[in-house]
Amino acid sequence: MRRCRMAMVGGGPGSFIGPVHVMAAQLDGDIELVAGAFSSRPEKSAEAGRNYRIAPERTYRNYPEMLAREPLQPGGADFVAIVTPNVLHFDAARDALRAGFHVVSDKPATATLREAVALRDEVNRSRKLYVLTHTYTGYPLVREARDICRSGAIGDIRKVVVEYTQGWLSERLELSGNRQAAWRTDPARAGAGGCIGDIGVHAFNLVEYVTAQNVAAVSAVLSCIAPGRALDDDCNVLLRLGNGAPGVLHASQIAIGERNRLELRVYGSKGSIGWKQEEPNRLTVHWPDRPTETRHAGCGYLGGSARQATRLPAGHPEGYIEAFANIYRDFAGLLRRRGEGDEQAWSDTLCGIEAAVRGMTFIERAIESSARSAWVQVD
Amino acid sequence: MRRCRMAMVGGGPGSFIGPVHVMAAQLDGDIELVAGAFSSRPEKSAEAGRNYRIAPERTYRNYPEMLAREPLQPGGADFVAIVTPNVLHFDAARDALRAGFHVVSDKPATATLREAVALRDEVNRSRKLYVLTHTYTGYPLVREARDICRSGAIGDIRKVVVEYTQGWLSERLELSGNRQAAWRTDPARAGAGGCIGDIGVHAFNLVEYVTAQNVAAVSAVLSCIAPGRALDDDCNVLLRLGNGAPGVLHASQIAIGERNRLELRVYGSKGSIGWKQEEPNRLTVHWPDRPTETRHAGCGYLGGSARQATRLPAGHPEGYIEAFANIYRDFAGLLRRRGEGDEQAWSDTLCGIEAAVRGMTFIERAIESSARSAWVQVD
Amino acid sequence: MRRCRMAMVGGGPGSFIGPVHVMAAQLDGDIELVAGAFSSRPEKSAEAGRNYRIAPERTYRNYPEMLAREPLQPGGADFVAIVTPNVLHFDAARDALRAGFHVVSDKPATATLREAVALRDEVNRSRKLYVLTHTYTGYPLVREARDICRSGAIGDIRKVVVEYTQGWLSERLELSGNRQAAWRTDPARAGAGGCIGDIGVHAFNLVEYVTAQNVAAVSAVLSCIAPGRALDDDCNVLLRLGNGAPGVLHASQIAIGERNRLELRVYGSKGSIGWKQEEPNRLTVHWPDRPTETRHAGCGYLGGSARQATRLPAGHPEGYIEAFANIYRDFAGLLRRRGEGDEQAWSDTLCGIEAAVRGMTFIERAIESSARSAWVQVD
Amino acid sequence: MRRCRMAMVGGGPGSFIGPVHVMAAQLDGDIELVAGAFSSRPEKSAEAGRNYRIAPERTYRNYPEMLAREPLQPGGADFVAIVTPNVLHFDAARDALRAGFHVVSDKPATATLREAVALRDEVNRSRKLYVLTHTYTGYPLVREARDICRSGAIGDIRKVVVEYTQGWLSERLELSGNRQAAWRTDPARAGAGGCIGDIGVHAFNLVEYVTAQNVAAVSAVLSCIAPGRALDDDCNVLLRLGNGAPGVLHASQIAIGERNRLELRVYGSKGSIGWKQEEPNRLTVHWPDRPTETRHAGCGYLGGSARQATRLPAGHPEGYIEAFANIYRDFAGLLRRRGEGDEQAWSDTLCGIEAAVRGMTFIERAIESSARSAWVQVD
Repeated sequence: MRRCRMAMVGGGPGSFIGPVHVMAAQLDGDIELVAGAFSSRPEKSAEAGRNYRIAPERTYRNYPEMLAREPLQPGGADFVAIVTPNVLHFDAARDALRAGFHVVSDKPATATLREAVALRDEVNRSRKLYVLTHTYTGYPLVREARDICRSGAIGDIRKVVVEYTQGWLSERLELSGNRQAAWRTDPARAGAGGCIGDIGVHAFNLVEYVTAQNVAAVSAVLSCIAPGRALDDDCNVLLRLGNGAPGVLHASQIAIGERNRLELRVYGSKGSIGWKQEEPNRLTVHWPDRPTETRHAGCGYLGGSARQATRLPAGHPEGYIEAFANIYRDFAGLLRRRGEGDEQAWSDTLCGIEAAVRGMTFIERAIESSARSAWVQVD
Repeated sequence: MRRCRMAMVGGGPGSFIGPVHVMAAQLDGDIELVAGAFSSRPEKSAEAGRNYRIAPERTYRNYPEMLAREPLQPGGADFVAIVTPNVLHFDAARDALRAGFHVVSDKPATATLREAVALRDEVNRSRKLYVLTHTYTGYPLVREARDICRSGAIGDIRKVVVEYTQGWLSERLELSGNRQAAWRTDPARAGAGGCIGDIGVHAFNLVEYVTAQNVAAVSAVLSCIAPGRALDDDCNVLLRLGNGAPGVLHASQIAIGERNRLELRVYGSKGSIGWKQEEPNRLTVHWPDRPTETRHAGCGYLGGSARQATRLPAGHPEGYIEAFANIYRDFAGLLRRRGEGDEQAWSDTLCGIEAAVRGMTFIERAIESSARSAWVQVD
Repeated sequence: MRRCRMAMVGGGPGSFIGPVHVMAAQLDGDIELVAGAFSSRPEKSAEAGRNYRIAPERTYRNYPEMLAREPLQPGGADFVAIVTPNVLHFDAARDALRAGFHVVSDKPATATLREAVALRDEVNRSRKLYVLTHTYTGYPLVREARDICRSGAIGDIRKVVVEYTQGWLSERLELSGNRQAAWRTDPARAGAGGCIGDIGVHAFNLVEYVTAQNVAAVSAVLSCIAPGRALDDDCNVLLRLGNGAPGVLHASQIAIGERNRLELRVYGSKGSIGWKQEEPNRLTVHWPDRPTETRHAGCGYLGGSARQATRLPAGHPEGYIEAFANIYRDFAGLLRRRGEGDEQAWSDTLCGIEAAVRGMTFIERAIESSARSAWVQVD
Repeated sequence: MRRCRMAMVGGGPGSFIGPVHVMAAQLDGDIELVAGAFSSRPEKSAEAGRNYRIAPERTYRNYPEMLAREPLQPGGADFVAIVTPNVLHFDAARDALRAGFHVVSDKPATATLREAVALRDEVNRSRKLYVLTHTYTGYPLVREARDICRSGAIGDIRKVVVEYTQGWLSERLELSGNRQAAWRTDPARAGAGGCIGDIGVHAFNLVEYVTAQNVAAVSAVLSCIAPGRALDDDCNVLLRLGNGAPGVLHASQIAIGERNRLELRVYGSKGSIGWKQEEPNRLTVHWPDRPTETRHAGCGYLGGSARQATRLPAGHPEGYIEAFANIYRDFAGLLRRRGEGDEQAWSDTLCGIEAAVRGMTFIERAIESSARSAWVQVD
């Protein structure tokens, strides 16, 4: 069975997320990177191509060139992974779909909700796969949590608490040459959301992914804490879920000492669960009147979703790259099924264009809520 | 040096907090319980008196009787501790002050803000000590946190996150004879706030106590989650601090599996701190570009406030009773200084009538905010 | 019901454990300190008496005087608590028993095994209560662990791992005026064991207390790590239990950064348990093929022993003083039953003279094993 | 720059460690698997070859065939990775070296010390690279720990405590068809050591790797706990380091509930460190009189060794595969330097033939010590 072939847009020298996509895609041997347009600057793209060990003739100067020429290559790419700054996502995804490629896109899907809605039309028209890499949904114990919630085991969802807290932008690194900071704090490249779009949307996605409840309304305060910053670097949001349950979502990039603290708690009428990204291989489960349960990745008592998402025995930590690789593995499975004629092949462990639209809706409505100091519907 | 003499209102059979006050007050040998009106039912009061080993003639049928007779006893009480359900706090405190006693009161200070304001006048008129037992302020590492914040070491306060999460009221225990649940969920005995008044106010107090910042405004959602309950059992509140910094406060009593999860984080412009009540003997401190610090109770590197608030070497856990006892120890120190003629004696490690008014203001404004779905000032 | 009356030998100014005994004994209101011979120096004894608020006429110059005069006092002491340095334990305990007092003794029971054996005869002859305060046996979750092991729930004991690690003696504090360090490192006051007698014996006791297995043999290495120290400050011991199962016990006082790290793990054929003194309110329980269980103090699912040993709801930490108080509370219960005519009254939650002899046997055999580099029986 | 080319011996269907080597080797794009003799059964080898997506003509029926033919292939393998059960390691390594390949071998190096010594001669004669994959040495914070120890920052090593505790063999899985259990508990395939050779040697290696101290002598108890098992499944060992410092090493495979609990503590005269494999991205560092330090992977304050061994920003967990990949990445770096003519190229972050001999010495001496109940030198 041949490997699926991946072409990448973005991920040039200095990129954080590009190499992660490549390592993740290739980890399980199902996918190989065969082509790329890695940078808007051709020499940078060529440099990246050498680092990724891509044949020079398949390292392109820009992505339109890649989309045009790859189909002519023997062993041309099956899909395009988009890992550029946010504002370029829409064009690249649309064009790739139109050129007949499946698409894997980094989040957020687009720079604006309007683009996300337009992209939904494109995806639907194309009949191609579109997958959004909400990395954290690839962790085995996030999938266990999801199974628990969706099975009804913890009863009705009564409250959610989710946070995504970082500290790396507590100083204005964007002023001192940090590439990652520079585009994320620049409305022209990141879109209208700063922290809310960079990490808040992960927290939002995690809530909807795990609980199967929509966020129905938000009351948000978005702040620019570091003096002079143009985009929000701190967000605090009250949530109302579809079933009326309350929730809290907070995110920050100015919280000194926090690394990548994404944490979710779901309280139900019969039990509750808690998960922390920095200790990803554990899930805490509470039932009334019984000791606290800690479930560990790799253990036989876990459900199928979690078991399929680990490669190693219990106690051998798997991390962020492996979670990311689970998304690519699921995607490769779909590609294979599509290749075998299953036109509707989809996996509900993945986030697709609907989640993409939801995420952009959340970002825009949170911004609106903060501007108006009022509750805003998210639908 | 004689022991200070304590008389108690409330704390009869079945009380949770009454015996805690007694253990805490007596732990260090500075105070002894000498009298009480422990219950509104005389036979219950007598039973409690026997359990506390109080002389029968100093176990009173009601507190007015106690306030009238204690001054006539040889070795009469120096102060009155009030540990009744909330709605009785005001009358008891006012009357005790008028009768010439110092007062220690459980929180919240009163059932309404109006009462708290009236009580402030009484306290000021009386020139007696009035101390509110916000237990958590007695932990050594809360005091260390406070010293750190107030010293400016972590710079300007940029964000606070505080929560107080419990699960014991996830079912309607008030329907099945649980005394503690019954009065706390009954507006006639608890006042207008349920969860917000029982535990939310502790979280609020902790923010103001530690950061030296006032909470300037709130946007709250108070919910009655358990079907049919009359008072809120879940609260989610956005905060705006006096300096404009954002914050989140959430509290719940329906979060299955949570015991008594009071946690505070303060993020500053130069550093940040984190503390958890269920692991009270540690304080996490973050500085930029340095490893995370964990400070442990009993260690020599701690500041004076923390060192004075421990009795044991590091690694010998002290808990809730010891924290409570620190408040009583500070109070006993004030009593002694007052006895020695220092009419102004006060300790800023304690919460007094101003904190009492602040707490009631917070409760009422949070209720108002939730009712109106709007931001409300807290001042 | 009157309070039990306690007289104390030792616990003068600068004592660590004396005030702990007093706080613990008095916490629940069952016991009061009424007399003492607190120091071998009369002026120090008097100073301590004032601090403890003992009547001057019941603050004695030495313990023989106390033992002679207390019986003549109205309300004379019921029992004597011995909290001196180790070498004085034997004489004080023997004399107190002979004078007709019940005895509570700090550990280790005596300075030598020979003394412990002799003391056993005295106890048996006296028909008085003798209780050894192995503090850690008072923690509720140690008692839960014990119940689990003794019930057979975790099957046959297959392995134990116990440690007691401290760092406070990593430097030779005994040279710079630290009282606690001075007597503990001085063979003339501590006896033949340093670390092994001060804390190793606690670890040993915990194994036998929890598992109901005897330690049958030891192979020990006792070291004097800090240059020039006369007594061991580090111990590493292989164990063979009565049923043949292996074990490891290690203790240290030179482990920089460790505070009071007493930890026990018991692995059985059907399950296993783990407990850590610095997080005393949790017990980890493992069963094959099921998620890890964490049991929390104060929860309704705990067994009777654990439930009786807590005063507060779950999530309200109780610590070292409360654990110590549980021993005194159990002791007070026995005194009452003895007073009511139950001559055999005993509680198997307590450590008595047999545990005292076991502890001294362990200390001497470990010293012998280390000297001979050989396995030595412990029986 | 071309990828290094890897051929593998072992790692057929059902292998745990084979796929780990492949994922680890390929993670960073420096190495590709091009050939293999994956099983002693040709059809199994072919099946594995298809799974690994190896060309059929380079999937060999046995390793001698592979060693003979690979040099004739265009793009023939540069090195051989050996991932068979232990007893086959020696022959395969020797033959691969003689055939001119560099060798990467899973641990333990051989089945006996005699073989290890013979292999050392082979390695020295061959002038090829020989690397032993002690996985845990690839973790960034193990390397930080090593740097700290070797820099002298924590002073003289005074004590080590190391454990490697698992529970998966608490039942005799080898009787019910578990492949991993079957060979590990069978002296004919595992060699003379069970638990001591499978995991005890990792713990031993970690001590010598991190501290730069040799283990000079051991006193061991090796037990067969599960009834009827032929090889030890539990080991408890007292250590004496080269500088005279004491230590404890314990390992188990029958400890119900433990997953893969490898933990190391090193106590020095000026500080101490602690690391846990199941939380690999943190390192605890203690200094006297200062708060506890926690160092986190990915942070800028770490030393060069640790920084080079992470791929992601702080808070993005890397795990076992990434640690393993660090070993392969270092190895690939050496291959490149050898290719560039640096005949002596070596990296002291890697374990080579000396560590291999040390490990086998430890295993045999521990077995001897246990048999004789005596201390045995390890040198």
